[in-house]
Amino acid sequence: MTVPSFTARFAAASRADCVALDRADVLAPLRDEFTLPDGVVYLDGNSLGALPRSTAARIAQVALHEWGEDLIRSWNTAGWIELSRRIGDKIAALIGARAGEVSVGDSTSVNLFKVLSAAVAMQGVDAPGRRVILSERGNFPTDLYMAESVAATAGLTLRLVDGARVAEHLDDDVAVLMLTHVNYRSGRMHRMVETTRAAHAAGALAIWDLAHSAGAVPVDLHGADADFAVGCGYKYLNGGPGAPAFVWAHPRHTARMDREQSRQPLSGWLGHAAPFEFSPSYRPARGIERFVCGTPPVLAMAALECGVDVFARAEAHGGMTALRAKSIALAELFIDRVEARCAGLGLTLATPRDADARGSQASFAHAEGYPIMRALIERGVIGDFRAGERSSGGDAGDPALTGDLLRFGFTPLYTRFVDAWDAVEQLRDVMAGGAHRSAEFARRTAVT
Amino acid sequence: MTVPSFTARFAAASRADCVALDRADVLAPLRDEFTLPDGVVYLDGNSLGALPRSTAARIAQVALHEWGEDLIRSWNTAGWIELSRRIGDKIAALIGARAGEVSVGDSTSVNLFKVLSAAVAMQGVDAPGRRVILSERGNFPTDLYMAESVAATAGLTLRLVDGARVAEHLDDDVAVLMLTHVNYRSGRMHRMVETTRAAHAAGALAIWDLAHSAGAVPVDLHGADADFAVGCGYKYLNGGPGAPAFVWAHPRHTARMDREQSRQPLSGWLGHAAPFEFSPSYRPARGIERFVCGTPPVLAMAALECGVDVFARAEAHGGMTALRAKSIALAELFIDRVEARCAGLGLTLATPRDADARGSQASFAHAEGYPIMRALIERGVIGDFRAGERSSGGDAGDPALTGDLLRFGFTPLYTRFVDAWDAVEQLRDVMAGGAHRSAEFARRTAVT
Repeated sequence: MTVPSFTARFAAASRADCVALDRADVLAPLRDEFTLPDGVVYLDGNSLGALPRSTAARIAQVALHEWGEDLIRSWNTAGWIELSRRIGDKIAALIGARAGEVSVGDSTSVNLFKVLSAAVAMQGVDAPGRRVILSERGNFPTDLYMAESVAATAGLTLRLVDGARVAEHLDDDVAVLMLTHVNYRSGRMHRMVETTRAAHAAGALAIWDLAHSAGAVPVDLHGADADFAVGCGYKYLNGGPGAPAFVWAHPRHTARMDREQSRQPLSGWLGHAAPFEFSPSYRPARGIERFVCGTPPVLAMAALECGVDVFARAEAHGGMTALRAKSIALAELFIDRVEARCAGLGLTLATPRDADARGSQASFAHAEGYPIMRALIERGVIGDFRAGERSSGGDAGDPALTGDLLRFGFTPLYTRFVDAWDAVEQLRDVMAGGAHRSAEFARRTAVT
Repeated sequence: MTVPSFTARFAAASRADCVALDRADVLAPLRDEFTLPDGVVYLDGNSLGALPRSTAARIAQVALHEWGEDLIRSWNTAGWIELSRRIGDKIAALIGARAGEVSVGDSTSVNLFKVLSAAVAMQGVDAPGRRVILSERGNFPTDLYMAESVAATAGLTLRLVDGARVAEHLDDDVAVLMLTHVNYRSGRMHRMVETTRAAHAAGALAIWDLAHSAGAVPVDLHGADADFAVGCGYKYLNGGPGAPAFVWAHPRHTARMDREQSRQPLSGWLGHAAPFEFSPSYRPARGIERFVCGTPPVLAMAALECGVDVFARAEAHGGMTALRAKSIALAELFIDRVEARCAGLGLTLATPRDADARGSQASFAHAEGYPIMRALIERGVIGDFRAGERSSGGDAGDPALTGDLLRFGFTPLYTRFVDAWDAVEQLRDVMAGGAHRSAEFARRTAVT
């Protein structure tokens, strides 16, 4: 994808230029799809996406009509039993997967356990000498915890390496490479195509966590020939707090599991070939449906579908290509403005400067990151704070790992250019004025 | 608990007597806590509980205010981060557990995987020679599937026996006994105290699935000295379709896991001792919180809390003791009336006649169970159908296992005596009139 460079332009921009950019923005009408509070600049959609305008009415309908009136019959009449697959098909369109390949339910952590276990089991047959799950030390903790667990059960080792040097560590010991496509702290984006190719060349399977990618950057799982993927419903997909997650497996793997009648370990009743036969023995459903476990939370699923449906409507406005271009422009503007307005105030960019190596966020390290973010939030600029890793060894100099980070997410469905502009002005104001250092501020924020 | 016998009385009752019973029922006001459609007799609360009247407003508030307005801040300001424990404390009061011992989230299947894995791991240390997970052949399938999976991973065997003869099979090979307290088909209730004592005497740990017990019958996990328990949020707890489930471990086990810093395998980030430190290594949270995995679905959690809160209000009306007495009376009435009105129509009671051995349902086997239930549902009497196990071997004569069952659940929070009466009259009408056998009915139901 060719991405225009906005750098030179934004360095000299004015707020009026931002207003003009918003006016010219083809995606601008999509902001009306969301309910956003007045006086707030929301730059934390990578932690919890905003509320789609359709969601409240939809979940009221599910509760009052489908549950309250039609009761148990709604599993069929309202299609509850199809939700996992129906929403999965819609997410598939965002990540380069095909209809029928994605299943929705459970959490990202639980889905990661399923695909890690499946991948490790396959490699246990195909390459039993490979005893390592390889990942990035700065990966999101739950990914590492689940990999620790799967590794311990299978007698494997979890090897954590510098994210920038994964390829060097793809040796004959590696059974599975598990990475998060876009890092939750730095926003650094792995090259999925090249990294998957390197994993395959080395004899490993590649699992991708799309938590910070789905709905944020173009993803092409088939184009990358990935093996397995999981992702989150409550970040860029705007599915609501704790929304169900999704899981994908390449059809070559589900076809093999079909042939071998093999299961993933969380083999619950809705992943059975015929759940309503209530057979005492498990027989896996075909394809991705064997990755379904228990009954999914229907209210939460309905809310997630509202979030995902916004992307279908975004197609008329240029779809993911336009979203990515705007996301890059927003981040470029933001970073340029921070560099211009906050020079000398001690912020260190922890996000790649190169847009192609970045997801849809910008992070800055600062020793006073926590009170600065608290002061920003008090002023209605909502980003978030991620503490640096305290136990770090050799990489103490890498702010992406050890820095206390101010993290700002850009969600081009609803973030405006003026939002990015205003956020930087507030950041400058807080830092230059020392609002975050006052005794009164410390007192106020200590008790909340 | 002393339970009055209503048998003789109901055999001769009239519908007017039922109206009088409803008028005298101390629990009657609780029906107003629920939204129930007109013209429906709902006897399927053991599959999906009815909609509490408070739920729709509560989830609208969570969506519009907590999510839409306060956004990410609601994890703290609205107490989302406490939901798992807060709802857990309320459920604890219904199952003889203590505050802080129950965690809510994930599905029953996933929670079963956690406790099965933890129990098997403990026994692997304490009694490594024990290589069997013992359960009941007629247990709910997902329980058996998860046990199959855990057994396979640990190199154990899942042994399935006749539910009535579990104690005889508690030999030196059994590491873990896993039972559902109230059977989903027959409604047969295990004697939790005696069975747990027998398991312990034999050197096994006891895991109880309370899916058809929590909110339906008095449960006393501490009184029974049980080891682990899980249960379902969407049946008698009225939490909504696919509501999150709960998990309990006896504090002697969580204390041991604290001492040994041991984990259950689904060690997600919210089960970490300090999730917001984002440490790359897992360190389990203390107590039951180590059984938390990923982020729970907040909208579904809020709905579940509304369902659970009805039980707190039921305390003023006699609480679980009154609920149990009414549940027994409803079932006695129903069974008596079926025996009186449907004699000779081929129905076989598949539920224990002894109220002490029964949960809150009544099931009848009939070869035409499926069309009969379809015809009943068309008339507004909603129970459900559970096909008999086709692959059965020696127990072909036990309708609890092999019969095609008409299943009727009694939920004394909202089921009235007239409902039970009217349901039987409709059942008699369908069966005596042959409505389920007509060609027109077959045509109509074939396409839906």
